[in-house]
Amino acid sequence: MSNEKEMFKGIGVLDHKDWKNPQRVEFPPKPFHDRDVDIKIECCGVCGSDIHAASGHWGDIEKPLIVGHEIIGTVVKLGSKCENGLKLGDRVGMGAQCYSCLKCDRCLNNNESYCQHFVTTYGMNYPDGYASKGGYAEFVRVHEHFVIPIPENIPSHLAAPLMCGGNTIFSPLTRNGCGPGKKVGIMGIGGIGHMGLIFANALGAEVYAISRTSKKREDAKKLGAHHFIATKEEPDWGTKYFDTFDLIVVCASSLSDIDFNVVPKTMKIGGKIVSICVPDENEVLALKPFGLLGVSISNSHLGSVAEIKQMLKLVSEKNLKIWVETVPISVENVHKVFQRMEKGDVRYRFTFTDYDKEFSD
Amino acid sequence: MSNEKEMFKGIGVLDHKDWKNPQRVEFPPKPFHDRDVDIKIECCGVCGSDIHAASGHWGDIEKPLIVGHEIIGTVVKLGSKCENGLKLGDRVGMGAQCYSCLKCDRCLNNNESYCQHFVTTYGMNYPDGYASKGGYAEFVRVHEHFVIPIPENIPSHLAAPLMCGGNTIFSPLTRNGCGPGKKVGIMGIGGIGHMGLIFANALGAEVYAISRTSKKREDAKKLGAHHFIATKEEPDWGTKYFDTFDLIVVCASSLSDIDFNVVPKTMKIGGKIVSICVPDENEVLALKPFGLLGVSISNSHLGSVAEIKQMLKLVSEKNLKIWVETVPISVENVHKVFQRMEKGDVRYRFTFTDYDKEFSD
Repeated sequence: MSNEKEMFKGIGVLDHKDWKNPQRVEFPPKPFHDRDVDIKIECCGVCGSDIHAASGHWGDIEKPLIVGHEIIGTVVKLGSKCENGLKLGDRVGMGAQCYSCLKCDRCLNNNESYCQHFVTTYGMNYPDGYASKGGYAEFVRVHEHFVIPIPENIPSHLAAPLMCGGNTIFSPLTRNGCGPGKKVGIMGIGGIGHMGLIFANALGAEVYAISRTSKKREDAKKLGAHHFIATKEEPDWGTKYFDTFDLIVVCASSLSDIDFNVVPKTMKIGGKIVSICVPDENEVLALKPFGLLGVSISNSHLGSVAEIKQMLKLVSEKNLKIWVETVPISVENVHKVFQRMEKGDVRYRFTFTDYDKEFSD
Repeated sequence: MSNEKEMFKGIGVLDHKDWKNPQRVEFPPKPFHDRDVDIKIECCGVCGSDIHAASGHWGDIEKPLIVGHEIIGTVVKLGSKCENGLKLGDRVGMGAQCYSCLKCDRCLNNNESYCQHFVTTYGMNYPDGYASKGGYAEFVRVHEHFVIPIPENIPSHLAAPLMCGGNTIFSPLTRNGCGPGKKVGIMGIGGIGHMGLIFANALGAEVYAISRTSKKREDAKKLGAHHFIATKEEPDWGTKYFDTFDLIVVCASSLSDIDFNVVPKTMKIGGKIVSICVPDENEVLALKPFGLLGVSISNSHLGSVAEIKQMLKLVSEKNLKIWVETVPISVENVHKVFQRMEKGDVRYRFTFTDYDKEFSD
């Protein structure tokens, strides 16, 4: 290897004010540690987080900001102490987390996504100060713990959105007992919600899609919903569905989006309302605790690597197909996709593909 | 039986403004239905609710208001269609609930305390309009569903406070997995909290008493706490006990009493914060949902009749002893006990006894 400073190619945001016009950039990867893996990226899903981070909604992040945390690719370099069985050439994925301490009780109990030393795949600093960089790039470098083999029968462009979005909805479903005999509501039928319908159905629950209008009724049925509730069109739905749900997973941007005068009524005793959103640290939620009589609320975070593996097994065994629109990655297409994401113009998830073409020059 | 209108004797509040001076009264019982039971009362525990209801804190209630819902006595009359196996002369108890529809899904699934037609033992109206009357009286009349045999080895004065207070803390403990290998905090060491320490210990958990000051440290240890946290004396307890609890049961008056900047930090992922208090319907709770990342909050209600039976079995088998101060019932002593309750001057529960003496005249 030469002494020349190693550089990765990517498409990065250089200025939050001009976030919809990211540019081709080169950047130094993080130092290569002995349990690190380099992945040559084949494709990457587009997550709502990419827009939040790029637009500066999550604060000022070191530039170039390389977003993207639904990464599928091939192992091209393995640290000398890798011990998880990965091989060069393996098709693998990584999600929204690139680091945790791997030593604390949470890490040792499949809760590394709740580790106090959690680092997200882009836009946060590793303990050594390096600002993490994501999947709108030729390569990504990461500790092998966060690198997950992809079952053969899942196409890469369908695997990518599972790595963050899929994981984000699979974890609260399985941690809260979604399964046969349970009535499960998925509230908010977007990128994550659509995977929620597919998974909740595959896990054996009786599935209710809960949306504001009827617009997505047909889609929801095709995705696996047994029932559809349009809350704006049935203002009295809280009464109609009294004592119905074992679990509602809220795929909206915050618990604050829930009408706590209505939703708790629809819950069974012992029922759980779980929001998938990591709320802003300063957000304050006002609710009537009376509604929480026999009903709990919580926020869920990313699931663990173990849960991503469980999810991939389910998707592989049941041959589940999420709904994805592929777009060849390029500066121009990232611009277009960011514009469409801002308008919610996607059913239901984008995956950037054709990395070879973009980065082979 | 004569045609004379049947009357029960009791000690009742006649005016919320003068609630600390209840009077001897006579009142007509509710009509006797064919699954009703008359219980000749032997003793009755004093619950914080008695003070709330008597003082008018829960609104203007029909007079005479006969409080008391921790009732132990003897079956003296059985409706013609009673089918639960009760016999005349049985020693039985009843708690804070005297009615539910017994037909809805909740009633049929041991959640009758969450039935929409729930009626409390005193101070609410039955469907026929009769204002329910509690245990500061010679007799109580109630549907046999709510009448529970008392195991022989539990003395009546120790059984009484179990019927509401004990049930109120036993239900959230067992519904939320209190048991071996679990770290359980009981926050607020009063009448209900002291039973929480006893039960959580008996159920096999590692028990933490959480109180504001050290005043009750020695009591808590004797009651079964393995650890004691004085939150005002250890302001940084949220950091010290980071990632500790599987369950905290809050025996304060409301979820609003919890410092949501601190308590969630002490919870394990998947941990549950449960308040035993039924909040006021208009109460609004403000909290940072960020604290609910991986942690849930909920309010618990009374447990079911089935849970009261489970609790009595545990108390009987393990010969558990709650801490009770007995007081012979009389107008004067109700006055004194109300005054002491108002000041929190009890460790940890009162039971009114000697009903025969008071009501035999």
